[in-house]
Order: sequence, then C-alpha cells, then structure tokens
Amino acid sequence: MQLIDGKATAATIKQEIAQEVDRLIAAGARPPHLAAVLVGHDGGSETYVRNKVLACEACHFTSSLIRFEDTVTEAELLDCVSRLNSDPAVDGFIVQLPLPPHISEQKVIEAIDYRKDVDGFHPINVGRMAIGLPCFVSATPQGILELLRRYHIETSGRKCVILGRSNIVGKPMAQLMAQKHLGDATVTVCHSHSLNLVHECRQADIIIAAIGQPAYVTADMVKPGAVVIDVGTTRVPDPSRPSGFRLCGDVDFDTVAPLCSYITPVPGGVGPMTICMLMLNTLAAANHSIYA
Amino acid sequence: MQLIDGKATAATIKQEIAQEVDRLIAAGARPPHLAAVLVGHDGGSETYVRNKVLACEACHFTSSLIRFEDTVTEAELLDCVSRLNSDPAVDGFIVQLPLPPHISEQKVIEAIDYRKDVDGFHPINVGRMAIGLPCFVSATPQGILELLRRYHIETSGRKCVILGRSNIVGKPMAQLMAQKHLGDATVTVCHSHSLNLVHECRQADIIIAAIGQPAYVTADMVKPGAVVIDVGTTRVPDPSRPSGFRLCGDVDFDTVAPLCSYITPVPGGVGPMTICMLMLNTLAAANHSIYA
Repeated sequence: MQLIDGKATAATIKQEIAQEVDRLIAAGARPPHLAAVLVGHDGGSETYVRNKVLACEACHFTSSLIRFEDTVTEAELLDCVSRLNSDPAVDGFIVQLPLPPHISEQKVIEAIDYRKDVDGFHPINVGRMAIGLPCFVSATPQGILELLRRYHIETSGRKCVILGRSNIVGKPMAQLMAQKHLGDATVTVCHSHSLNLVHECRQADIIIAAIGQPAYVTADMVKPGAVVIDVGTTRVPDPSRPSGFRLCGDVDFDTVAPLCSYITPVPGGVGPMTICMLMLNTLAAANHSIYA
Repeated sequence: MQLIDGKATAATIKQEIAQEVDRLIAAGARPPHLAAVLVGHDGGSETYVRNKVLACEACHFTSSLIRFEDTVTEAELLDCVSRLNSDPAVDGFIVQLPLPPHISEQKVIEAIDYRKDVDGFHPINVGRMAIGLPCFVSATPQGILELLRRYHIETSGRKCVILGRSNIVGKPMAQLMAQKHLGDATVTVCHSHSLNLVHECRQADIIIAAIGQPAYVTADMVKPGAVVIDVGTTRVPDPSRPSGFRLCGDVDFDTVAPLCSYITPVPGGVGPMTICMLMLNTLAAANHSIYA
C-alpha cells in the first residue's frame, strides 16, 4: 500500500506556481490577485479562507479578504461581487460557501463574472467542463485528477466508482473521470438511493468517496489492490484535541488501507490539493490562458 | 416483453401541446414560433428538419426554415444567429448540425441566445442542467426520460448502463439519470475504452445504447428482464428500400427483444420523442416558463 501524499504534492505544485509567478513578475507583470469574500464567522469557513490566504502567500500571489457580518443583505453582497467583477486589479475571486440562509447562493454564484470564477461554480464553467471546453474546473475534482496523474495511476478503461453526487464534487468528478483524454474511465455514480452500492464498490479499480459520512467505506466494500480517494472531511467531536474536533474521512482508513494499492489520508490527502488547484485557476485567470 | 411505442407516445404529446397552444391562442397569444437554420443538403439533416417542420404543424406552432448553401461563411451564419436572437417574433431556434468543416459548430452554438437555445446545447443550458437548475434540456435524453415516465418504468436506485459519452446524448443522459428527483439511478457510463463493458451491461436493469454501432448490443450482454433503450440510428445501405437504406439501431433487436421487459424499436422508439421534446422546449420558450 502506498499513501498518496496530498500535502507534499500540493507543496511541490505551489513551488512550481511560485517559480512561474516570479518569472512573470521579472517580465514586468504584477502578481496574480485572488480575492476571497467571507460572510460571518463559521469555523470551517474561517479555516478554509485562512488556508487560501496562506496558499496565496506560498504562491507569491496578492490576496485580499473582504469580510461581511452575517447580517449582510443579499443586495450588499451582490454589490461587492459586481465591484470585484469590474476591478481590473482582481484576477479571480471566490465567495466562501455556505452563505446565511437569507442569501441565495445560486444568485451570488451566477452574479460572478465567469472569467473570474476560479471556483468553477458558474453554470458557464460547469457547462463548458461537461462539453470538454477550456474552463475553470471545480478545484476538488481537479485536484484528485492531478493526484492520480502525479502518482501515475492508470485510469483509462478502469472501473471508477464515485460515491456522492454533489454539484461541487461528485458530479464534476464523474464527468472528468469519464471524459476522453482525461480520466477516460468507466464511471459509476452511486448515492443514497443506490440499491447496489456495496456491490458496485467491490468491483471498483478506483473508489472516490465524497458523501460526508465518516468511515462509511469499510474493508468489505473494497477490492484488494484498489485505489481509494477520500474526499470526506467531517468534523467529529474529539475532546482530546485542542480544537475540540478531528477531521474524519468517508473511508475507514485503518481497515481499508491494508487492502489498497494507493489511498489518500484525511487530513493531508485531497484537502491540500483543492486549495492548490484554486491557485492554479487564479494563475490561469491572471494569464488569461482560459478566457481572453 | 413490451414494446415502447415512441411514435404513439410522441403523437399523444404533440396532441397535448396542440391543445395547450389552442388555449394560449384563444387567450390572445400568438402561436409559438420555432425557426430552423439548415446549411447545405445533407440527406439526414434534410429529413430531420422536415420532420421538425411537420411536428410544428402538428403542435399548431409557426415554423420557419432558413436555408443556406454549404458555401455560406461563418460570419454570414453568425449574422443570421444574431438576427434570430433579437427577433421578438422567434421564440426558439435551432441550427441543424453537422455544419460544413469551415464553420465552427461550437462558435455557432455559443452565439445562440441561451434563452432561445431550444436544442439545449449552449454551455449555460448544459451547465444549468448539470447543477439541476431549470433550463432547456437536450431533446434526446429528455425524450428518453419521458418514455420511461410514461411507461411507469422505475429507475430510482436501479443500475442504468449508458453506452456512449457524446455531448448530445451520453453525457446529458448520464446526468439526468443520476439526478435526484429525476432518474435517481445508479449510473454507469461505458465507452470505446471501457475494459469491462460487457460485464457492466450484463448487470444493468436499464441499458441506454447511444454509440452509433449497428447491432452492437447482443443477447449475451443483456440481463433477462432488463429495459433496453436504443438511441442508434445508423443508415445502413439496403437496395431493397426505395430510399436505398434502412435505419439500424445499436441493439440487435431480434435476439435481444425476447429477453427484455421493455425495449424501444428503431425506428419508432426514441427518434419521434426527440422531436417532440424540441416542441416542448419551444413551448416553454414561448411561455417564458424557464427564462423570463
């Protein structure tokens, strides 16, 4: 069994990006600029945004953080999106989700100029990805593809089972894994209503678990030699930790890992790659390498 | 084995649409108006466009056909698209594919106002479908969902194998079949590079074949009691027919049909439903029931 080290891979990629940015700056360009909009004080969101700001530093990007209290109105937030859309000093930006219930997340996502939508959540980017056109690809599935690539894991023709059908992970992951010249795999999407989920998993060469249920994937569901990618990051209360919780993946790591050819840990697997791909998307936005 | 009669189902739906249109006209509205743009004289395209015009008549729609020789330039065609986009008398329009090689199909598709894109090929419609938002859904997969619904074929939780990953059928079909509150099935997409295609098919409760290879699906690939939907319509030379060809499905009907619980014939299965869904999309465009 080989551990897929997302943390180390992400560090390498961030170094590669920083070198590219240094070259751009030496050639007279300004650093890429990612802005993040954070509403309220949700613990998870605070952590994600802090990590994104730190990643910007590691990549030699400019970052800015725009904060609103969770009493902000939808109109005020849409105004902010509109300002960022037209600010030539900002290459790409994200609005950290979730938003408070009085604000329509979909309306906010659709208000973002798709050419600055480095999260890849705008329908135009989602649609272009589905068709196989250049676009900003949602960071988590893109990060998983990159891990598979860097670990030389063959996917073409193999059976890949994806657990979960979220807009952010399951659905785009299925599309990328099935896409010609990308995953090129035989892809099965399983979800809460699947009658044959365990049977499907047992046949999988590659399992990608993204359902948010701690330790859902157990040893009896995994074929010996399979590759297991764990997207789950559920916060489970743990009084022994200073934070009061630990991150728990969708895979029962201790029993599953010995069976696998490759497996990602939680934390340190998919998570660091996600932020890294956001950096790559921001670099692409600054370079206008996807959209003119 | 029950034959799924797409022709009869399509006739019923067209009658339902015509009744709705009569109500709208009685209430003072003008009939929905579908325009079709046809470039050149490809036999298949001529037939498809003629059938769309006939379907408009059956639905009490206005239709118009705009013809170009295959020497038309891309700029001229884009001008035509732009005129149709801004013509308030046209509710929806299609540009019949394929186009001559000197014209970029993608550029033409993206030039169409997504609010008039009744084929559902524009990235905005593709993306909104992927996310599960209201949109124009590509007609063939939508027609297949409607057939399954009208024949009360349970899909939730069942294993559905889709053969083919085209942008027009395979990919959107997989998304709709996996979508919550729609197909809600466990969906596997197989394609030319799949190593385990036959094995996957044998386990399927529902097979949807869309690869364009005559009689590819044979009896040994089908589980007894399965539902088989045949999207293939390859023209095979047949000197005994006045046209010189016959339409051949992806399924070897004679050997597969006895095994099935339900099967669609070719012709008379999926084909008539496709045009019918184009009519439903045009009605929705006229009613502004998807986009304001």
